[in-house]
Amino acid sequence: MIYTSESIEKVVEYFSSLPSIGRKTAYRLTMFLLNQNSDFLDKFAQSLIDLKQKIKYCSQCFNFTEVDPCPICNSDKRNKSIICVVEEPSDVNAIEKTNEFKGLYHVLHGVINPLENISPDDLKIKELLHRINDSTEEVILALNPSTEGEVTTQYLTKIIKPLGIKVTRIARGVPMGLSLEFADEATLSRAIQGRVEV
Amino acid sequence: MIYTSESIEKVVEYFSSLPSIGRKTAYRLTMFLLNQNSDFLDKFAQSLIDLKQKIKYCSQCFNFTEVDPCPICNSDKRNKSIICVVEEPSDVNAIEKTNEFKGLYHVLHGVINPLENISPDDLKIKELLHRINDSTEEVILALNPSTEGEVTTQYLTKIIKPLGIKVTRIARGVPMGLSLEFADEATLSRAIQGRVEV
Repeated sequence: MIYTSESIEKVVEYFSSLPSIGRKTAYRLTMFLLNQNSDFLDKFAQSLIDLKQKIKYCSQCFNFTEVDPCPICNSDKRNKSIICVVEEPSDVNAIEKTNEFKGLYHVLHGVINPLENISPDDLKIKELLHRINDSTEEVILALNPSTEGEVTTQYLTKIIKPLGIKVTRIARGVPMGLSLEFADEATLSRAIQGRVEV
Repeated sequence: MIYTSESIEKVVEYFSSLPSIGRKTAYRLTMFLLNQNSDFLDKFAQSLIDLKQKIKYCSQCFNFTEVDPCPICNSDKRNKSIICVVEEPSDVNAIEKTNEFKGLYHVLHGVINPLENISPDDLKIKELLHRINDSTEEVILALNPSTEGEVTTQYLTKIIKPLGIKVTRIARGVPMGLSLEFADEATLSRAIQGRVEV
């Protein structure tokens, strides 16, 4: 008989279901939590409940936000004539950290991937085209340097360029194979400065 | 300006405060959770709340339990004449996994550590002595192979042996410096079999 209480087992299972956390780590985290006071656990739990209840997609850029439109789309200080297209909300965060970009974002929520049956219709591409108007001067494609990112960059270039809008992509300062999310600020910064017209 | 919503930031902070989880991992976990449905998050949150509300210490062995006395102390199948003394509740779990030991446990909740001001009075040693009675035949000391574990083993031997009870400790099958929690089943199994009288 392996003895673990049901309540402990449940928390261990939830932690194990998270990416990069195995059963042993999950167990250690649970033991750590058991040694915290109830207040900490209640607040941690509440933050998880709030996460899904308070966070929604911005109706303009499709980044995660608590208010719609999100603070970036709604800001007077942002240059509304440049839209930076990224794959995931975490990429917005990565680029914001560089302090290099002052335009707007558009989150595609993925890239075209025929192997996983992800077609342009599954991404926020229609919504991107809808946002592009007379005041739009440039669309920066900041997708991950993967084959799928490449294909999506080509696809978007082909449909946006004919609208008479400058389409650029961030420079290959980002090493091949590295997720945008993990690129350091300096690399991402250079990549944005050195962006080239497609 | 680094843009992150308050709700996201909170979850990231809670995850970062857990051992072995840095900010980047915490952020990834939070993004993963944002992509789960509300049901998953609510249940995860509830499991955390339950953890502290349902789990208490067993009044006999001081292991974590939902019912008092715990299922091990309360079981008819356990040999009540042998008590295995461990440092932490996670050690009970590690030993149970070996299926080698059929007695009772006693969790000290630490070891004697003068540098951190942990004296015998801070541990569940009084409670251990209180449990030892005429039916007790053997006390197995299964503390971690650290200097502090060694000191505590010596200390307990000195006070329990005069009571006329056999005091053993698990064999040095456990490599020095490794936490019991991380020892593999086979090693722990052998360590219990080869226990020697102190």
